[in-house]
Amino acid sequence: MAAAAVAPAAKLEDADALIDSVETFIFDCDGVIWKGDKLIDGVPETLDLLRSKGKRLVFVTNNSTKSRKQYGKKFETLGLNIDEEEIFASSFAAAAYLQSIDFPKDKKVYVIGEEGILKELELAGFQHLGGPTDGDKKIELKPGFYMEHDKDVGAVVVGFDRYFNYYKVQYGTLCIRENPGCLFIATNRDAVTHLTDAQEWAGGGSMVGAILGSTKQEPVVVGKPSTFMMDYLAKKFGITTSQICMVGDRLDTDILFGQNGGCKTLLVLSGVTSLQTLQSPDNSIQPDFYTNQISDFLTLKAATV
Amino acid sequence: MAAAAVAPAAKLEDADALIDSVETFIFDCDGVIWKGDKLIDGVPETLDLLRSKGKRLVFVTNNSTKSRKQYGKKFETLGLNIDEEEIFASSFAAAAYLQSIDFPKDKKVYVIGEEGILKELELAGFQHLGGPTDGDKKIELKPGFYMEHDKDVGAVVVGFDRYFNYYKVQYGTLCIRENPGCLFIATNRDAVTHLTDAQEWAGGGSMVGAILGSTKQEPVVVGKPSTFMMDYLAKKFGITTSQICMVGDRLDTDILFGQNGGCKTLLVLSGVTSLQTLQSPDNSIQPDFYTNQISDFLTLKAATV
Repeated sequence: MAAAAVAPAAKLEDADALIDSVETFIFDCDGVIWKGDKLIDGVPETLDLLRSKGKRLVFVTNNSTKSRKQYGKKFETLGLNIDEEEIFASSFAAAAYLQSIDFPKDKKVYVIGEEGILKELELAGFQHLGGPTDGDKKIELKPGFYMEHDKDVGAVVVGFDRYFNYYKVQYGTLCIRENPGCLFIATNRDAVTHLTDAQEWAGGGSMVGAILGSTKQEPVVVGKPSTFMMDYLAKKFGITTSQICMVGDRLDTDILFGQNGGCKTLLVLSGVTSLQTLQSPDNSIQPDFYTNQISDFLTLKAATV
Repeated sequence: MAAAAVAPAAKLEDADALIDSVETFIFDCDGVIWKGDKLIDGVPETLDLLRSKGKRLVFVTNNSTKSRKQYGKKFETLGLNIDEEEIFASSFAAAAYLQSIDFPKDKKVYVIGEEGILKELELAGFQHLGGPTDGDKKIELKPGFYMEHDKDVGAVVVGFDRYFNYYKVQYGTLCIRENPGCLFIATNRDAVTHLTDAQEWAGGGSMVGAILGSTKQEPVVVGKPSTFMMDYLAKKFGITTSQICMVGDRLDTDILFGQNGGCKTLLVLSGVTSLQTLQSPDNSIQPDFYTNQISDFLTLKAATV
């Protein structure tokens, strides 16, 4: 397939110019800040540099299994001092989305997903059911068996779930199909996730795909590459998205997310995307800039300066 | 949404003319022959009439949980004497598809689904793994954990599976993504299935959607409304599809299946579709004819005869 005619990404040469041109940096985490449980070289110094220049830093992740607080601990373990308020996980995005639409507090949320989503819903004051506790439930079939479901469920939130089963699929499907106006919200539709570093693992796209397959309804996606988080950030901090630079290692989530939101975009080659993939004629997603890793900010100065 | 401009279905008035115009009748089962565990009125006499007129009868179902032999027993229980060779379940279709493409006997098939698929693969002489035995498997996560998979798997067959879990999703995904040329075959993509009569249950579309969500690959569908079974039947019996009448109760599977295959189509109102749905401006799928139930064949004669 031929690529659409888009300008090819430029190799980052003048980091200061890029830094000066924006007010906020949004970083994807895996492949940018860390790889698995290992911090990428030069990250602490790079973040310090950006903070010293007065830049706002935001960390986004499509992983919904942890809450913001739990992510904060991961940063801490790696020796990074990041405020909880600077972290935007898709678990938080699901709760923030419900708040943004004034989802009624007397309605409930059915969760297909892990603990992060439950914790964020709790913090936002939403009633929820499902989640890990439904992981061991089985449907004992008898002739004429009827599965009850809660008629007060007004939203089904679906994220990555290692304890995914048919009970959850049927429960979520019943809510979406039979409760009038029930929402179908996906934290993300990623094909793969990094459960361990040893291989790629089927991601949240599987759980979302299962519910789509039985409801034939498209979900509202709150994680990357949907622009919900970007719009939320822009509103929260009172900035325009053109003042944001999105930094990530994935073309079809991070860079697309930045472009969908109207941000500047920087691809780092420290994660899953190689220079060869970026420059392949099959790739139609071109960031504004690319560089090896974010610590290049420390060394790349304009040749003319 | 406005319907496409298609001729509206005609109420069946001259059953003999329809019967005389075709050589084979393909019947969907649920909603046409039976409802749950109850035979629909007049079915035995209707089938006898058609046989006495020399018509070939074929029974198709997207349900993949049973093999042809197991379906034969269901017909027997209901007092119908149907030959195994007259039954085409999507479990059989999966095995027939693999035979049709000369799938190598030294390759293996990974199954996400229930017993029917395993039995049909066995009968066709294909090696298989997965299925119900993987229903209790869990992934015990440790840092760096790597899930092994069989590199000889050359096809993943996905059908309805009550024991669906993350282990199966990841196993099937690994085979499709990492084994060169590995096929992704779906028995069907039905949103709903009739596990019990008491309510609608999430169908095979869920399991297929999950694998699609993690592989981003479209499956080869062998059940309705894909034309594989129709083409197989036409070839097997040496007939053209215009000599077939497809009889079913669902517009978007049965009638579409018949139309995709170039058959005459008859909708019966004894299952899920009401006359109101058929005649709604939102419905764009119009069969050639409609009638209340197949036993109308016994009474409907041309007014002019």
